[in-house]
Amino acid sequence: MIAYIFEFIGTAMLILIGNGIVANIVLKGTKGSDSGWTGISLAWGIAVFIGVFMSADVSGAHLNPAVSIGLATAGKFSWALVPGYIIAQVLGAMMGNLLVWLTYKKQYEATEDTGSILATFSTSPAIKSPFWNLVTEIIGAFALVFGVFYIAGGAMGEDAVSLGSLDALPVALLVMGIGFGLGGPTGYAINPARDFGPRLLHSILPIKNKGKSDWGYAWVPIVGPIIGGVLAALLYLLIESFI
Amino acid sequence: MIAYIFEFIGTAMLILIGNGIVANIVLKGTKGSDSGWTGISLAWGIAVFIGVFMSADVSGAHLNPAVSIGLATAGKFSWALVPGYIIAQVLGAMMGNLLVWLTYKKQYEATEDTGSILATFSTSPAIKSPFWNLVTEIIGAFALVFGVFYIAGGAMGEDAVSLGSLDALPVALLVMGIGFGLGGPTGYAINPARDFGPRLLHSILPIKNKGKSDWGYAWVPIVGPIIGGVLAALLYLLIESFI
Amino acid sequence: MIAYIFEFIGTAMLILIGNGIVANIVLKGTKGSDSGWTGISLAWGIAVFIGVFMSADVSGAHLNPAVSIGLATAGKFSWALVPGYIIAQVLGAMMGNLLVWLTYKKQYEATEDTGSILATFSTSPAIKSPFWNLVTEIIGAFALVFGVFYIAGGAMGEDAVSLGSLDALPVALLVMGIGFGLGGPTGYAINPARDFGPRLLHSILPIKNKGKSDWGYAWVPIVGPIIGGVLAALLYLLIESFI
Amino acid sequence: MIAYIFEFIGTAMLILIGNGIVANIVLKGTKGSDSGWTGISLAWGIAVFIGVFMSADVSGAHLNPAVSIGLATAGKFSWALVPGYIIAQVLGAMMGNLLVWLTYKKQYEATEDTGSILATFSTSPAIKSPFWNLVTEIIGAFALVFGVFYIAGGAMGEDAVSLGSLDALPVALLVMGIGFGLGGPTGYAINPARDFGPRLLHSILPIKNKGKSDWGYAWVPIVGPIIGGVLAALLYLLIESFI
Repeated sequence: MIAYIFEFIGTAMLILIGNGIVANIVLKGTKGSDSGWTGISLAWGIAVFIGVFMSADVSGAHLNPAVSIGLATAGKFSWALVPGYIIAQVLGAMMGNLLVWLTYKKQYEATEDTGSILATFSTSPAIKSPFWNLVTEIIGAFALVFGVFYIAGGAMGEDAVSLGSLDALPVALLVMGIGFGLGGPTGYAINPARDFGPRLLHSILPIKNKGKSDWGYAWVPIVGPIIGGVLAALLYLLIESFI
Repeated sequence: MIAYIFEFIGTAMLILIGNGIVANIVLKGTKGSDSGWTGISLAWGIAVFIGVFMSADVSGAHLNPAVSIGLATAGKFSWALVPGYIIAQVLGAMMGNLLVWLTYKKQYEATEDTGSILATFSTSPAIKSPFWNLVTEIIGAFALVFGVFYIAGGAMGEDAVSLGSLDALPVALLVMGIGFGLGGPTGYAINPARDFGPRLLHSILPIKNKGKSDWGYAWVPIVGPIIGGVLAALLYLLIESFI
Repeated sequence: MIAYIFEFIGTAMLILIGNGIVANIVLKGTKGSDSGWTGISLAWGIAVFIGVFMSADVSGAHLNPAVSIGLATAGKFSWALVPGYIIAQVLGAMMGNLLVWLTYKKQYEATEDTGSILATFSTSPAIKSPFWNLVTEIIGAFALVFGVFYIAGGAMGEDAVSLGSLDALPVALLVMGIGFGLGGPTGYAINPARDFGPRLLHSILPIKNKGKSDWGYAWVPIVGPIIGGVLAALLYLLIESFI
Repeated sequence: MIAYIFEFIGTAMLILIGNGIVANIVLKGTKGSDSGWTGISLAWGIAVFIGVFMSADVSGAHLNPAVSIGLATAGKFSWALVPGYIIAQVLGAMMGNLLVWLTYKKQYEATEDTGSILATFSTSPAIKSPFWNLVTEIIGAFALVFGVFYIAGGAMGEDAVSLGSLDALPVALLVMGIGFGLGGPTGYAINPARDFGPRLLHSILPIKNKGKSDWGYAWVPIVGPIIGGVLAALLYLLIESFI
């Protein structure tokens, strides 16, 4: 139970900082609108650091269904815990984004562009192409989960949770690198909870100038990261078999 | 007594670097006017690193009344020390900002915009709205103090000071993340001493083109961070009760 | 054999993130086109961190023929392993760049400028001058390999691999510094595999608007880094002889 | 003798990366001209990291006469070694800047602005005012040396050198913070060797469109940092006397 609480807390902190920087850039009437993609990549990496650091020693800091499923696929995390972890991650993401909305309440009211408002919740592709957007999300999440296996490697046992607080910096740098290097086409969800939870919140919240929640795209940042995480697990197992 | 001196030193270093970057950006005739919000967020985080690193092993590096009050609320810091810590923090912030003024003396003289000059001392909202500005400051300081509890967690006893020098990097990254993610609406005081001390200094110093010190807003970055710090302490205690 | 696999993996991760940021900046229809040289320098440094962190404990994380040859020149790495390492590095660089191409597939299709497309594979000089471009690459790779000797110094024995995962951060910062400080004239290959492997892939891949692979320049980012690495090894040995 | 060699190497690496980023920004025909003050501040901090990391365990990584004199003033470094350290630092700075010149040779040839060329060697004020420029350099170097005392504190004995390689990151962050926060008025020499050595080299080198070396300003970045370093030492001793 306490592990679920810390998955909730870690994911809420992740989204609070992460979608906070998006709000700071795309909404009207903020002080940080010039932060740019460098700001996006750095801040999301820092958000991961905070979320992982705060939750790692209790829950293992997955904060991401692709990580939970990837670790379970490799036999490093109990499948029995996966559903609870995913629920906690989705609820945490919703809580974090609710706090973003409250933090930027006046800025949301000042913003008329519906696409900008949706961007502070969920991701969207720069060039829409379901197949290639899926490929991008698969590769991004593959890089994340494959990296997590080697970062967490030393401490992993059969049913153990994965990351410790000392792993927060390497994982944060990994996500910074994915943001800079692989985030250009789809805004790098690489995490089903990070996209689905906020999108659900967007569809519920009474926001002025809200627009559609674009549910037609919602499956890409869910399916892509899960495929990427599973592929990373299978490759990890293949390499382990050589050693 | 020595703890008060190090709270003074740490807060002075924090404000010297932190409001230094603001001066570098908003005053006329500087070399760093293009630093942008990325520079603001990185530099304030680095300022926290320096202040915490230098003072942590002696005073616990609160550098912020919201941290002192939050820790005391949770029973992790003696209430008897809180007034002295706060006085040291406010005086340290004033000293740091005095050094910023001396460092940029010719630039202050070249600057005519009173708002820019005030910005190198205290914070102001992008969109004025006392209630929502307060909400923003509550959430920002909540994120800070809640994070500090888990960063300092391993080393905390009943009356112990909180942070050690090894905690300087996590806390610095936390403040970088808050700057990027939550700083857009109010310029993230998240620290009553950081805002009140410099505002007091602004009202005293004989600066050309000074303008008003905007005391009407001054309560928001005092009250908001204290509420945020207390809420973080209460939530921390609640979670602890589950473990 | 397993060392070769990890050189392949590490170099693939390096190029995936590193040339990913280039694609994010120079291709049409991406979200990160404003990342600038600060983004380039930070992201390549982070890419080195990831590649080194993941491979160091198995292969020593050379990821660069100039490092392998430099270490071998100094008697710190077996010449017998050099050819296999270089082949693994070149193949890894090709694999990483193939994934960049798949990640940005729609963006490649939207881009008409052949120079931009080539820039996502291999380097080119800002001002063409074979001799001075070579000098730049020699100095850049010298700084890298000379630094690696002192970063890896504590752990080096006669035939030992060089870097451990704890060395990932110093090496990453070194490459960030080289990017910022020495990358301006040639785009800092400082690594024959990083330039040759992707250039070979560019000449093979069926990319729309591909243009020439500029093989006339290809020798500079191969020969320069090797000379730089050997010079670093010789200077290192000279200094060691004083101690 | 070996300590002098490592002071030379460390300072050469510092200036190679540090003035390299200046060259990348101000010269014509480079790839990194958009790096901005964020790039300047980050890269000089990284340059300090590299210089300190490579030399700390042998020479204590002063790399700066203000540090050597400050430590000697506090009785933490032998006055007998100070002249040799300063000579090594000045020569190292010249060597590092010579390599910058070779790295950017074609870019120097393409640049006509004499001020830009001088900027890749030595510092100049944004608003000329000898007294206030001196104040800025005093405060900047004070912050540096005062910080170094507390970063190096744990390891210091009577005649001991100061910094170890584990101190490289805190010192680098300190210099990043000084760049962002205090570098705006004078370009933060905060190091007599960093300014004097390259200025001397500038006056010697046969550069096209060279212009004057502005020796009239040269005393400010020599005298200011030394005063700042001595003040930091005196304050450090005063505080120590309370403990």
